[in-house]
Amino acid sequence: MPLNKYIETMLPAIESELQRQVARLDEPLTRPFYEMLTYHMGWTGEGAGPDVTGKRIRPLLVLLVITSYEMKWLHALSATAAIELIHNFSLVHDDIQDNSDKRRGRTTVWKKWNMPQAINVGDALFVIANQAILDLSKNYSADVVVRTARVIQNACLDLTRGQYLDMTYENRNDLSIDDYWKMIEGKTAALLSACTQIGAILGAADEQTIEQYRIFGRDLGLAFQVQDDVLGIWGNEALTGKSAASDLVEGKNSLPILYGISQKGKFAQRWAASAIRPDEVAEVAQMLVNEGAREYAQREAERLTNRALETLEKINPKNDAGKALEDLTKKLLNRES
Amino acid sequence: MPLNKYIETMLPAIESELQRQVARLDEPLTRPFYEMLTYHMGWTGEGAGPDVTGKRIRPLLVLLVITSYEMKWLHALSATAAIELIHNFSLVHDDIQDNSDKRRGRTTVWKKWNMPQAINVGDALFVIANQAILDLSKNYSADVVVRTARVIQNACLDLTRGQYLDMTYENRNDLSIDDYWKMIEGKTAALLSACTQIGAILGAADEQTIEQYRIFGRDLGLAFQVQDDVLGIWGNEALTGKSAASDLVEGKNSLPILYGISQKGKFAQRWAASAIRPDEVAEVAQMLVNEGAREYAQREAERLTNRALETLEKINPKNDAGKALEDLTKKLLNRES
Repeated sequence: MPLNKYIETMLPAIESELQRQVARLDEPLTRPFYEMLTYHMGWTGEGAGPDVTGKRIRPLLVLLVITSYEMKWLHALSATAAIELIHNFSLVHDDIQDNSDKRRGRTTVWKKWNMPQAINVGDALFVIANQAILDLSKNYSADVVVRTARVIQNACLDLTRGQYLDMTYENRNDLSIDDYWKMIEGKTAALLSACTQIGAILGAADEQTIEQYRIFGRDLGLAFQVQDDVLGIWGNEALTGKSAASDLVEGKNSLPILYGISQKGKFAQRWAASAIRPDEVAEVAQMLVNEGAREYAQREAERLTNRALETLEKINPKNDAGKALEDLTKKLLNRES
Repeated sequence: MPLNKYIETMLPAIESELQRQVARLDEPLTRPFYEMLTYHMGWTGEGAGPDVTGKRIRPLLVLLVITSYEMKWLHALSATAAIELIHNFSLVHDDIQDNSDKRRGRTTVWKKWNMPQAINVGDALFVIANQAILDLSKNYSADVVVRTARVIQNACLDLTRGQYLDMTYENRNDLSIDDYWKMIEGKTAALLSACTQIGAILGAADEQTIEQYRIFGRDLGLAFQVQDDVLGIWGNEALTGKSAASDLVEGKNSLPILYGISQKGKFAQRWAASAIRPDEVAEVAQMLVNEGAREYAQREAERLTNRALETLEKINPKNDAGKALEDLTKKLLNRES
């Protein structure tokens, strides 16, 4: 399948560009600080290795779109590093905000060092991302760099808005499924949408196609988050790296849970009563299945994936990078981690 | 004095540009989030008003340098907003990291809302700063925008490095004055140095002068921090908005304290024994005076200010904006808050 071929050549290049960018902090005086970043990125420390670096889906998306325009993807590596670093900056801060001990099966930065240092680690990842965007000027005109930076920063602002909603929702028990879509639009879809958009900008696509790629990426992002929510309750612990059904125990406002609440059945009653204990998780997850929450969420993920695929069909990207984009979209829906 | 004339015209323009930039978050769905930012900026909430917005020294520096080149300072307002927002992003995160309840006499964001929201407020201020830099493209070539952005982001990375050192120093009792200079180089001098540098870049100065402005801003920044440290022990509480001698109680690694430690006298003995209690502050501050720490720090601030003024003399900036730069440099040394 063309996707695998691209993954094989692109992933090592993405990884070494990320390492090159983060090495900006590699100075004797602040080496332990640098090592906090390399630990989080999955390169050093306990459990380091390719299994914990994350899937680097965002960089892949950018590069596949560019390649479909028969442009040199090597030229855009620093932009993909920027996006991936922004994603990781948000994870480091998110882990503090959610009080999460584990990330991809490893101790989180704030838990391993402390909260003040972890805030600073996230900040530094964001700064390096900003620097990486500017590195594009080696291969693109300054006008293109400024436009790309604008798309990325707009997505970042949406990210903080989504994060605000997510944190505010924690104290509410009247949330609707509509509130959910507004939150994940910012939290997940904005950055994935920026990926496909900047792929089209750096591929020198026309304005209409850039807009279509924005929509494609957004729908892909929404589908991605919904699938994540399904895995957050029914995923295989060994594959996801999170404890099974942790979304139930943590009281996360995920789509199956909000659907369950809206059904006003047994699940909603149990949910309203008190926090779910780890030993009840199997039983409560089964309530959600019985009330149709799992099926609903899976159908939504499919619906959004199909909508993304329809947009992609309209764009009709060239060569087998176009086919790889289609494969990747389908793969994200059917993933198990 | 020319400085006052410039302050009178520039400050209101800086403030309204800041408000325009932050208004990117002014949407019904996330209004309370927006209000966390406007609260921190000193525009809304208890105690809001011109006394608590901060002195906006960084924007003023940028605009005075530009004006000395007889360039339109109005064109550069978004860059000054960017710098001021970066300064404020670092303050919001710093207050969490330092566990500070008060900032300019008002409750800090994390204390008023909570820590997770405050992390996000800082992040959003940084994103808006990045967006503000890109707004420069309305008035400058994309090449100049990219160069300006690079100078600012490099300063931000230095800022995270300085912050790392500051946090790490807290657990050490073997710090030398040399360690101090390395820390404040990042924490304070880097951003002030970026201000004068980008003023010169946007003023279309030659490369040699841009470099001289970098050095001028750095020395000004170092002097500024040392003076801040003096005020942190001997400042007038009513003027600084901080509780008197809080640096002693908080065990801050400020210059007078590190000098006192190096003297291995009464102060060093008392410091090593246990944390300073509020009721001992006057006595301990007097020990520092007796052992020459206050005089040493004041002399260092003067030495650095004079070095900055010598560089400025070499640059020999034109018109009364040049005179205003000199006035501002002297004023920062003699300030009481």
